[in-house]
Amino acid sequence: MKSLKDYLDKINPVDRNITTGVQKRLDSQTKPLGSLGRLESFCRQLASVQGTVDPLYEKKVIFTLAGDHGIVEEGVSAYSQSVTAQMVANFLNGGAGVNVLAKHAGCSVVVVDMGVASDLDFKGCVGRKIDYGTKNFTKGPAMTREQAEKSIVTGIELALDYDFDILGTGDMGIGNTTPSSAIVSVLTGIEVQEITGRGTGIDDNALMKKVNAIKKGISVNNPDPADPVDVLSKVGGFEIGGITGLIIGAAIKKKLAVVDGFISTAGAIIAQDLNEDISDYFVLSHLSAEKGHDIFAKYLGKKPVLDLGMKLGEGTGAALAIELIDAAMHIYYEMATFDQAGVDKKIEA
Amino acid sequence: MKSLKDYLDKINPVDRNITTGVQKRLDSQTKPLGSLGRLESFCRQLASVQGTVDPLYEKKVIFTLAGDHGIVEEGVSAYSQSVTAQMVANFLNGGAGVNVLAKHAGCSVVVVDMGVASDLDFKGCVGRKIDYGTKNFTKGPAMTREQAEKSIVTGIELALDYDFDILGTGDMGIGNTTPSSAIVSVLTGIEVQEITGRGTGIDDNALMKKVNAIKKGISVNNPDPADPVDVLSKVGGFEIGGITGLIIGAAIKKKLAVVDGFISTAGAIIAQDLNEDISDYFVLSHLSAEKGHDIFAKYLGKKPVLDLGMKLGEGTGAALAIELIDAAMHIYYEMATFDQAGVDKKIEA
Repeated sequence: MKSLKDYLDKINPVDRNITTGVQKRLDSQTKPLGSLGRLESFCRQLASVQGTVDPLYEKKVIFTLAGDHGIVEEGVSAYSQSVTAQMVANFLNGGAGVNVLAKHAGCSVVVVDMGVASDLDFKGCVGRKIDYGTKNFTKGPAMTREQAEKSIVTGIELALDYDFDILGTGDMGIGNTTPSSAIVSVLTGIEVQEITGRGTGIDDNALMKKVNAIKKGISVNNPDPADPVDVLSKVGGFEIGGITGLIIGAAIKKKLAVVDGFISTAGAIIAQDLNEDISDYFVLSHLSAEKGHDIFAKYLGKKPVLDLGMKLGEGTGAALAIELIDAAMHIYYEMATFDQAGVDKKIEA
Repeated sequence: MKSLKDYLDKINPVDRNITTGVQKRLDSQTKPLGSLGRLESFCRQLASVQGTVDPLYEKKVIFTLAGDHGIVEEGVSAYSQSVTAQMVANFLNGGAGVNVLAKHAGCSVVVVDMGVASDLDFKGCVGRKIDYGTKNFTKGPAMTREQAEKSIVTGIELALDYDFDILGTGDMGIGNTTPSSAIVSVLTGIEVQEITGRGTGIDDNALMKKVNAIKKGISVNNPDPADPVDVLSKVGGFEIGGITGLIIGAAIKKKLAVVDGFISTAGAIIAQDLNEDISDYFVLSHLSAEKGHDIFAKYLGKKPVLDLGMKLGEGTGAALAIELIDAAMHIYYEMATFDQAGVDKKIEA
């Protein structure tokens, strides 16, 4: 097995020079300069990521990674741990939110067991279980360092194994906003309570327990902010490491990653902290309604594509953003130019 | 011909009670309560507009209304007036931005000549010409009161004549941000320079001319802020009146109108000022990059669905928002319930 370091060494910066040619094409089309705003930036980014003025965009895959969390013992979630496995079955049956929105966006969904607490023998589920859930991080590390690295490498290799032009990330794991807030608090130095919210809908009492559990986990394990793998192992989760890996894997393949919401952005922060060149390889699909996600986005220096008050995870935000990116690429390839349409250009001042 | 008043009398408030049943269905689906945010609000609104918990959403039409503006004599636009007719041809040939995005969203496009300055004999263009462009409103009213009323009634009757579940608005008219800013300044009392921007890309000098032309037009014509038809006639445009009519027509038919950008929102402000019940029948598709559109949205008390820095018009923003509304309705009709999927519900506190 290649090491994480081997893979990180394979990442190259995107080719920013490509954007000149892309913008030239966009500017030849029958619209005022720059008038399609962010749609035009999607075209530039996809081209610079792929290193060509003719980027591909038709094959779109959302990876929904599932894992369980020992921290649920502390009463940090509104749902019981059994729901993680039940939702995996729901994904495989096509009934969940991500299935509906992915289908709408022309994406396939790959469902991966990264560390669900029970044995899953569901047809179609990709088995990459690192362990039967993480440990309760108020009592010690969530996982070993080897497991943390393995979760990231597993994500990388998933991205390398599947064929796609655009990758979307997604997560399922009861309790996983808790490790996400913990990871980001350590890596960014932002106070725990600033970036810890109600997840799937906990009350004030459970929110207090959640904040305290995160603080205790950080205090007990003393993760090193300069070492993202250490942070992932101490207070993280298998599916979060997997998402970090998916984003790294997309960058290695020179493909765009569309990062879902709160949990996926925690994974993206680990990825970017591991290698800053990765930043140009992903977009944040939407601003989650989960408290603190705006702070995550700011740390990454990115504006999420959508702001629809969503907080479901699974890859639902990624699916919607991919639909807009797809629309942008249709503009790029299909819109008429001024010359083709016989439309007069802007009056020169 | 029915009068505008006859039509306005046909508008009834939406049925807000319907939303209880809609939310009940959404809450039975496998996701934390309310976790699809604005997508859920689209479901509630579409249902309350149609007065049924089983609203239709499959037939989607964008009306792109074209008109010319005498005010271009004052040097307020970066493009020459000839472009309006050329773009109508481009729409009919399928090469413009709205064609690409409407196709992507599964919408048809109806192109209407509301008042282009030249004779158009393009196949497929719906002829509803009120006049050969408006007059230069720095010298007198842009149109007669009869023409203003006729432009609105024409829009209403277009909405009544075509079959759709969701209507999108769109515009084409070189110079038409100028009347839009003028109309909204009069109706809202907001200073002209606060809501007057660079349109298709004018320089500082042209922007100064534009602001001055609007101020002069208001001063010369003295439009009555309490009488939206008077305002439309004094400083408006035929396609803007037509858009007002489309929104009114959608409300009469109990259908949702998805309002495009800057110009369409000016039309929506006229519609809402004519009958406040109309507010519940439309959404603002996107926040335009044109200066002042945020103020338009605030006046209407609405948050635009998207914020992508776009400012093309034509119905391009409406198409993208319709795609998201369509996605929301797929959620509503296709997502599995907790019972169907065998997923445990939230733990009761």
